Amino acid sequence: MTTVSAVEALGDPASPEALESLFARFSARFGDRFSRSEALREQHANTLTWLKVQAPDAVLFAETTEEVSEAVAACAAARVPVIPFGAGSSLEGHLNAPFGGLSLDLSRMNAILAVHENDLDCAVQAGVTRKQLNEHLRDTGLFFPVDPGADASLGGMAATRASGTNAVRYGTMRDAVLGLTAVLADGRIVTTGGRARKSSAGYDLTRLLVGSEGTLGVITELTLKLFGIPETILAGVSTFQTLEGACNATIAALQMGLPLARIELLDEVQVRGCNAYSKLSLPEQPTLFLEFHGSEAGAREQVEIFSEIAQGEGGGALEWAARPEDRSKLWQARHDAYWAAKNLRPGTDLIATDVCVPISALAACVTETKQDIERLDLIAPIVGHVGDGNFHVMPLIDMSSAHEMERARQFLDRLIERALRYEGTCTGEHGVGQGKIRYLVAEHGEGVDVMVAIKKALDPLNILNPGKIFAADL
Amino acid sequence: MTTVSAVEALGDPASPEALESLFARFSARFGDRFSRSEALREQHANTLTWLKVQAPDAVLFAETTEEVSEAVAACAAARVPVIPFGAGSSLEGHLNAPFGGLSLDLSRMNAILAVHENDLDCAVQAGVTRKQLNEHLRDTGLFFPVDPGADASLGGMAATRASGTNAVRYGTMRDAVLGLTAVLADGRIVTTGGRARKSSAGYDLTRLLVGSEGTLGVITELTLKLFGIPETILAGVSTFQTLEGACNATIAALQMGLPLARIELLDEVQVRGCNAYSKLSLPEQPTLFLEFHGSEAGAREQVEIFSEIAQGEGGGALEWAARPEDRSKLWQARHDAYWAAKNLRPGTDLIATDVCVPISALAACVTETKQDIERLDLIAPIVGHVGDGNFHVMPLIDMSSAHEMERARQFLDRLIERALRYEGTCTGEHGVGQGKIRYLVAEHGEGVDVMVAIKKALDPLNILNPGKIFAADL
Repeated sequence: MTTVSAVEALGDPASPEALESLFARFSARFGDRFSRSEALREQHANTLTWLKVQAPDAVLFAETTEEVSEAVAACAAARVPVIPFGAGSSLEGHLNAPFGGLSLDLSRMNAILAVHENDLDCAVQAGVTRKQLNEHLRDTGLFFPVDPGADASLGGMAATRASGTNAVRYGTMRDAVLGLTAVLADGRIVTTGGRARKSSAGYDLTRLLVGSEGTLGVITELTLKLFGIPETILAGVSTFQTLEGACNATIAALQMGLPLARIELLDEVQVRGCNAYSKLSLPEQPTLFLEFHGSEAGAREQVEIFSEIAQGEGGGALEWAARPEDRSKLWQARHDAYWAAKNLRPGTDLIATDVCVPISALAACVTETKQDIERLDLIAPIVGHVGDGNFHVMPLIDMSSAHEMERARQFLDRLIERALRYEGTCTGEHGVGQGKIRYLVAEHGEGVDVMVAIKKALDPLNILNPGKIFAADL
Repeated sequence: MTTVSAVEALGDPASPEALESLFARFSARFGDRFSRSEALREQHANTLTWLKVQAPDAVLFAETTEEVSEAVAACAAARVPVIPFGAGSSLEGHLNAPFGGLSLDLSRMNAILAVHENDLDCAVQAGVTRKQLNEHLRDTGLFFPVDPGADASLGGMAATRASGTNAVRYGTMRDAVLGLTAVLADGRIVTTGGRARKSSAGYDLTRLLVGSEGTLGVITELTLKLFGIPETILAGVSTFQTLEGACNATIAALQMGLPLARIELLDEVQVRGCNAYSKLSLPEQPTLFLEFHGSEAGAREQVEIFSEIAQGEGGGALEWAARPEDRSKLWQARHDAYWAAKNLRPGTDLIATDVCVPISALAACVTETKQDIERLDLIAPIVGHVGDGNFHVMPLIDMSSAHEMERARQFLDRLIERALRYEGTCTGEHGVGQGKIRYLVAEHGEGVDVMVAIKKALDPLNILNPGKIFAADL
């Protein structure tokens, strides 16, 4: 379970002199957009992760693809690691600097370069956040659907292959990115994919870079698919007697091809957290938050069909979020699930983890996970993008207690072992980062060697985000 | 436009002795599943391509992944190229053997290994064809949507990132493949992806192998997404005054999010061909073949909305294919477009090519292409998966005439130049093979170097399908 495949750490790391000389040049070249201040360095590694902070040696705010290229080439020449940084909302230690190096902050690359309304696509710089893009699109009748909880940068979302509540209908970043511009480990700038909806012209470099977590290239621009805002959006809440009932209703709806836009499971612990944090008053039972998109008649028909299915599985009648503001409140509560969970045991740390299994295994996998939570006496709410078979568990841990940490580690190991036993994956949308390196071989076997061969071919010096996905030095 | 980036041809090709020794071993090991007969060798390179046939030295019918592994490892040791073969329906010379070698025929690996109805997925061997799979699924209420014209093998469809008429609604092979088993250039067997609907666990090797045209691995098994057969399927034909009208109606429908299942454009030349070949009696004008999937009310609503849009763009009323047999006839005619086109000028060869552009550029790109056809005095029907911006042109050429061949080459060069000018791709679904190598750098620039670096990392001896995608030796 814990076999580890490692790309060697930097074979020939920067000497202190080379580092000083490089940083002196960066300081002269970029002025106050380059900084070695401790506060800034700490902030660039201190994300939502529960892993220990490993600050970079310096931070550079890049403003153009050419600057990124220049910086990466200079870092490569000096053997200094480069850690791309977007909004800082990643969960698995992606932004840590275990070998030191430069945090390359792309948040100022936040221009929306083009919106092609007729083609339902747009071009953005990597630092644009998902909310910023949707704000910009507001008057076009279009929207960008991928919505991780945080207001992440689109570059970071691509790098971690993020998804969110809409994936069951609109796909993940794997599907959303039509093409991208990236800076490779030697500073070369490549453009992949394009604006055509499909292509068979060569290897799918776009999909290779999406999910590569900054280890193959620094994504600086993206071409993204957009969707028309549906004529009618209906949202509501359905409460179930059991987790199985909620999962089975989900399976039945998917099987009949009901085009659910969102179907989110909250266990009774998470509902309790949301009630307190987001001022809801839901029954503390397994609950589905749902959204239906379509024409007016179409959306209403979906609701009727789903209501019938839910009732057959012990679900209560759908509680409507009729007004747009009620709907916003509902989804804000869902997006705030992390903070609501944290609130259930103040003063502790929250370990946000996720797995994804075939939908038919979801009820069993969630149920066994809850039994393990009880057995270990943890507080660990569960929320899930159940239309994808993806769920999150968030153990609340006192990290100063070795005993609690040990229980948490056991829990995580078993959670992933269970997901893999059900032919699932160790992470549906958070990525590997540092936190899941130890599970990758169990999931992909020799496939990891193929990944490492690609990493070595494209980044032979292991400059780009070293110690993520592959390296063992946790 | 014609810059070429080449992976070197086999540096150290098999000596005649090594080849004889290998083939003697294969003959002893595989009996009559291994053959050097001229007829069989010719047949394994003589596909629907217009490129000249380059037969392999021998053919092996493999029956298991382990046999594929054994054969590839032995070929690698002897420096003998391996050309994977499925149904032989590829269009760009993928199955040619410019450096000789072994055609590895997977058509006997045609077992359907599992159908998971609850998860809407299945596992198949690579030699299963799309029609075989759908026949097998008949009683499950599920179907597999990707449908290139030919009854291709699913392994070959994955290898060329194929699509077809349903892609606008159900996606291409890029989307349909959840995971796969492949034999690498050294004979190692890897399994990529999995059965979870999404994953962020490492590089997307599935998507890297899909579309790699047998140059990175021999795909032997696939896990594929399935879909529920919709409650209601409505199909019909809409005739337009102009190509622009048909394209504009398509754009408008997509923009409002109408979930079109199929929207296929035929120009008046192709309609003439289909009328003759498939015994239809359609007006010889630009025509859309359409299909709508949904609940009964939902599908009817889509039809009404589309009819209104079409009328606004000069389209006639929708002619219904009301009975299932009428619908089958319509789509069979569409799938037979290749043969119908060929029939327009008997005795000539048909060059089947495809490009794909952003949908907003479709009308202009098709119109300019038709002007070029007229200028060059070619007969070249056009059919298109216009919901994706993808269209096919099929010049009918007397290949014994140097003059005609020269005009055809000019036409193809300009077609692709035009598609790239509109930010499109040199191939939407046929692949690069040998026929489009010369356009790849114009489309992807330095990206081609990245592809070559990956190819060299995973197949350093250039054993797997050499001379496809990259090599220059046409």
